[in-house]
Amino acid sequence: MTRFSFGEEASLPDTTDPVALTQMLIREPSVSPDTGAAQALLAAVLEQMGFKVWHLAFGEGKEKTFNFFARRGDKGPHICFAGHTDVVPPGKEELWTHPPYAAHIADGVLYGRGACDMKGGIAAFVAAAARMGEGGPGSVSLLITGDEEGRATYGTQKVLEWMAQEGHIPDYCVVGEPTNPLAIGDMIKNGRRGSLNAHIVVEGVQGHVAYPHRADNPVHRLLALLGELTARPLDEGSEWFEASSLQVTSMDVGNTATNVIPAKAEARLNIRFNNLHTGAELARWITTVCQKHAPQSHADIHISGESFLTPPGAETRALISAIRQVTGRDPKQDTGGGTSDARFIARYCPAVEFGLVGASIHQVDEHTSVQDLETLTQIYHIFLKEVLA
Amino acid sequence: MTRFSFGEEASLPDTTDPVALTQMLIREPSVSPDTGAAQALLAAVLEQMGFKVWHLAFGEGKEKTFNFFARRGDKGPHICFAGHTDVVPPGKEELWTHPPYAAHIADGVLYGRGACDMKGGIAAFVAAAARMGEGGPGSVSLLITGDEEGRATYGTQKVLEWMAQEGHIPDYCVVGEPTNPLAIGDMIKNGRRGSLNAHIVVEGVQGHVAYPHRADNPVHRLLALLGELTARPLDEGSEWFEASSLQVTSMDVGNTATNVIPAKAEARLNIRFNNLHTGAELARWITTVCQKHAPQSHADIHISGESFLTPPGAETRALISAIRQVTGRDPKQDTGGGTSDARFIARYCPAVEFGLVGASIHQVDEHTSVQDLETLTQIYHIFLKEVLA
Repeated sequence: MTRFSFGEEASLPDTTDPVALTQMLIREPSVSPDTGAAQALLAAVLEQMGFKVWHLAFGEGKEKTFNFFARRGDKGPHICFAGHTDVVPPGKEELWTHPPYAAHIADGVLYGRGACDMKGGIAAFVAAAARMGEGGPGSVSLLITGDEEGRATYGTQKVLEWMAQEGHIPDYCVVGEPTNPLAIGDMIKNGRRGSLNAHIVVEGVQGHVAYPHRADNPVHRLLALLGELTARPLDEGSEWFEASSLQVTSMDVGNTATNVIPAKAEARLNIRFNNLHTGAELARWITTVCQKHAPQSHADIHISGESFLTPPGAETRALISAIRQVTGRDPKQDTGGGTSDARFIARYCPAVEFGLVGASIHQVDEHTSVQDLETLTQIYHIFLKEVLA
Repeated sequence: MTRFSFGEEASLPDTTDPVALTQMLIREPSVSPDTGAAQALLAAVLEQMGFKVWHLAFGEGKEKTFNFFARRGDKGPHICFAGHTDVVPPGKEELWTHPPYAAHIADGVLYGRGACDMKGGIAAFVAAAARMGEGGPGSVSLLITGDEEGRATYGTQKVLEWMAQEGHIPDYCVVGEPTNPLAIGDMIKNGRRGSLNAHIVVEGVQGHVAYPHRADNPVHRLLALLGELTARPLDEGSEWFEASSLQVTSMDVGNTATNVIPAKAEARLNIRFNNLHTGAELARWITTVCQKHAPQSHADIHISGESFLTPPGAETRALISAIRQVTGRDPKQDTGGGTSDARFIARYCPAVEFGLVGASIHQVDEHTSVQDLETLTQIYHIFLKEVLA
């Protein structure tokens, strides 16, 4: 647990101003895993706004991860915002036009690591909650983790377990990831595909190419099993999902002798799968196909996330309505792309993702328009008024 | 051209004794490419026996290769023996029980690099020719190269071109490779499969595994084309040949990022093909299949030898008869295994391979039994008497 003390001379920004809040957070560098200072600043702001904050550090030593849960109100409906204060490294700082932790504003654009992914998203939600004021109906909470970009083992998953124990599971959760490809209002993520990695190693019997019957070519066994795994699409998509996709990302033998059948061959593959599959079912399938074509093989399979889907309900309709009111756009509900902590939250309650424009995430000169911060704040504010009413 | 001068005190061995001749050749180390000294010794022996010798060096600088052609008689029938004086390196000499160039005899076994591959075979043929004596019917010749174990570019092929120009193409050729798996008389090679190597490189478009439609996975294209190339046997064998065989010997991508579709994938394959195919036809097939599945691919194809077959004729029957008389064995006519210079000779005249027992070739403690050297000499002698009569 970490507590942050402001000196007498320190002052917190205007909590209804998402730009000032974003700058405050960017200026506290917090490359994954966040060591707690950025969260302490944020917690101080929320406490001032009437939130109760539980600092929740999990993991030991190098794996220690700082997180917190903050809630204002103890009645339903309970709406939660989930976000992460940790950011990816800036890379070569000399490549940045504006220093990554300076939070410079130039021509209406705010630059800095985390500007859109996702300190800006957190700031917009905090400002929206500030504009709601204290004492309103229902509850507003924030689930903040310091390790989303990293291994994510001791972050959101552990906080959710604690929330379940303490009776803090919300009715609905908005994850503040930058879901919009080009402009605010483009896209809500209402689900995500799951992801599975497999490393397949096939053992054979080395020999001379002139005498293949005395050898057992592991390359041919690997070709046969990968041929079967890639022979046909896993599915043709479902109502909310595009088709699942299996990509073989590497095949490696490393044999430079043209007259030698090698002893071993290996391959790596990734599956992004929709709600027609589970990781366990796909893992069984991969293992079965490997054994069929290569009894002397081993598949090391890691399921990094199951797929999830949040079918449209009242809260999602309220969010879409707020987006329409503020931007005039009709957001697409989409389940494509990578993974986020929403995959963990969706096990407990309906969750969607909606935040800033993500075009510059993880890049040099990550940025958000200042106008977008205000726009997103207004959307979150209208949404909260609607669903908490 | 290299000439060797014997000092007055030097003496040549008894030319009818294959053991003494083998020892003489082993004691002159000649790892590929033979730098000429072993050949000069051999040429001196043949000149003493009434052969005319043409020293034929081809290639420049590091590629310079010493060879010679020797012939006794100028009438037909003309029987040629083809062999190589070069040997593979001994490896770690301390692993040898008997030093690789000492030509020690122990318990009736002669040890040394080249004992069976193929200084012993050359010695047996020279001894057989010596036992024939000068002035007999027809012609006997030797085609000796110093680079069979290496690249073989400036060896037998170049000598054959010279022989063709000079009117020395024989009626039949015996290549003295150690063809017998276990005992003299086991096996004649009356043909060899061809060999082709291909290095296939497929270019794709790199991308994130979550967005495969924005990438072009070269691994999947490589899988498809290798799948087609390996889908069915090339043939089911022919009268004298086992089935052709395609072996993929390596597949390499080297991508360790599990979330990235790589930009390039490559594979290497070798085909050992029988007389139902030509190298050119197989190269066209590989190129067509590559282009079909991967227009952005390149196949670098090298045909290291075409297949050849010497159907049984009078000379082969005479060789088999000689083997039967001396050993009591009925040799199998076989076309399996690797390649030899016979693939070049068969373009000009019928050629078979028959020599010593090959079990120890290229190994530590390469050896031949002393008795086998005499047995092989007797076989070659009876064969020469029969076919030159």
